[in-house]
Amino acid sequence: MSSAKPAARPLLPVLDAAQVQKIIYDGLPMASYADFSITDLSPGAVTVRLPFRDWMVRPGGTVAGPVLMLAVDTAMYAVVLAHIGDQKMAVTANININFLSRPKPVAVIAEGRIQKLGRRLAIVEVRMHSEGDDTLIAHATGSYVLPA
Amino acid sequence: MSSAKPAARPLLPVLDAAQVQKIIYDGLPMASYADFSITDLSPGAVTVRLPFRDWMVRPGGTVAGPVLMLAVDTAMYAVVLAHIGDQKMAVTANININFLSRPKPVAVIAEGRIQKLGRRLAIVEVRMHSEGDDTLIAHATGSYVLPA
Amino acid sequence: MSSAKPAARPLLPVLDAAQVQKIIYDGLPMASYADFSITDLSPGAVTVRLPFRDWMVRPGGTVAGPVLMLAVDTAMYAVVLAHIGDQKMAVTANININFLSRPKPVAVIAEGRIQKLGRRLAIVEVRMHSEGDDTLIAHATGSYVLPA
Amino acid sequence: MSSAKPAARPLLPVLDAAQVQKIIYDGLPMASYADFSITDLSPGAVTVRLPFRDWMVRPGGTVAGPVLMLAVDTAMYAVVLAHIGDQKMAVTANININFLSRPKPVAVIAEGRIQKLGRRLAIVEVRMHSEGDDTLIAHATGSYVLPA
Repeated sequence: MSSAKPAARPLLPVLDAAQVQKIIYDGLPMASYADFSITDLSPGAVTVRLPFRDWMVRPGGTVAGPVLMLAVDTAMYAVVLAHIGDQKMAVTANININFLSRPKPVAVIAEGRIQKLGRRLAIVEVRMHSEGDDTLIAHATGSYVLPA
Repeated sequence: MSSAKPAARPLLPVLDAAQVQKIIYDGLPMASYADFSITDLSPGAVTVRLPFRDWMVRPGGTVAGPVLMLAVDTAMYAVVLAHIGDQKMAVTANININFLSRPKPVAVIAEGRIQKLGRRLAIVEVRMHSEGDDTLIAHATGSYVLPA
Repeated sequence: MSSAKPAARPLLPVLDAAQVQKIIYDGLPMASYADFSITDLSPGAVTVRLPFRDWMVRPGGTVAGPVLMLAVDTAMYAVVLAHIGDQKMAVTANININFLSRPKPVAVIAEGRIQKLGRRLAIVEVRMHSEGDDTLIAHATGSYVLPA
Repeated sequence: MSSAKPAARPLLPVLDAAQVQKIIYDGLPMASYADFSITDLSPGAVTVRLPFRDWMVRPGGTVAGPVLMLAVDTAMYAVVLAHIGDQKMAVTANININFLSRPKPVAVIAEGRIQKLGRRLAIVEVRMHSEGDDTLIAHATGSYVLPA
């Protein structure tokens, strides 16, 4: 290998939080049900807040797994769009999620971070915690196939 | 299995499809939104049908990823409950999902199959296709931590 | 979506077992240590046999996890090369493996099957059992980024 | 953590680096081939160094995938043993690994960190880079089933 780093794309957002949020709300009716917001966007990273709703509970008074998966998917999609622009046809190839501790029945905070932005594949990591408590409730990694 | 095998639990359902469905609907308000049904239950396996709704679309006119994840989670939970009984506190430890081809905007059929039912951990595989088309649209594996 | 299936590559091998085995042995010195052989190759599928060696044990008298991972990697690489030809620069993007039951201290049989062969990504599933016993010992899925 | 938290095990090592290394070398002949060393051990974390050997290459002059998987497995096993003591029968349940960039043909550094140490399951994250270059080459998460 040469001493120069391979040409990874620089991690500079090309959209701001409001633009990314609008693209997702416009393309996915599900977003309105989830009522999420992008509360932070920085190079390589995004924070998504998913407010708690009564329909999100599961036995034990905690947040159901599919809600956490929705948070993962939203954070991954948001951080990828923020860095590649309005290319809605980026599609998820793989998601792996570990459920670590019981979420509280409050908002879920999902922090997405790009691990790699290649030409064909983006790899993203998502850490989740309950609002007001920094205990890790779930951790996910996933990959996106990028449009040519 | 011969008598020499380690004592894996025999894969015999202890609940029928209607019982499993009722437990899930009673415990998870989200189930009513998804309006899924368990269309088949046999030793080690279930089939779940998730009807298509307008809110499930994503750009490209296809079914959004979180809907497939909901189908995975439902099929996994259903097949585990069917074989361990009404123990709602079984919790997912890990889910890994590969998205393989674009779902049609029709019902999602998710077939869950137990790969292992140990004392502490159950491992389940889920294959998904669009109703009326047997192309694999997604494949998942996951693990459940079982109550003591 | 149109009624015609998207143009998935047809799953026809372009190399035979001996050719694939030679490519892997030539490119990976590790292959000679592992001493694996491709015992079957058919459309979309390959069977790899990894003979048991004393250095493969772990506590409990069973086969160590990294040996199963080597079997997964070999089966995935073999089935992909068999279908795309001698393109050694195909690289693994992701592997997920579930360890299901204790392998016996005998040869590992790994059956790799292509779930999807797209233009940019191949997805492969691998099922493993101990030679002479069809109990599933491990199950893996993984993805390959294909050369342009 | 407040006293109200569920009783997660405190992340205090009960073995030192030399003790963990000896347990692994004694139990796994493969360890001698890999010739790894534990270069750091702190609460919840270990660093493992796997020196580069000629047999580790793959086409492209880089380190083969199974070598990175061996590094993941070693770092996971080491950090778990360090915190639960000499209980060799802890067994891996799941490993998920993303390959991010091409490793250099030099030593692999794998940093394992416990995400959760429950009564039945431990979840570990591993970050890997080439010695002398902090670019992330691979990232893994995995779970261990703990002895009762």
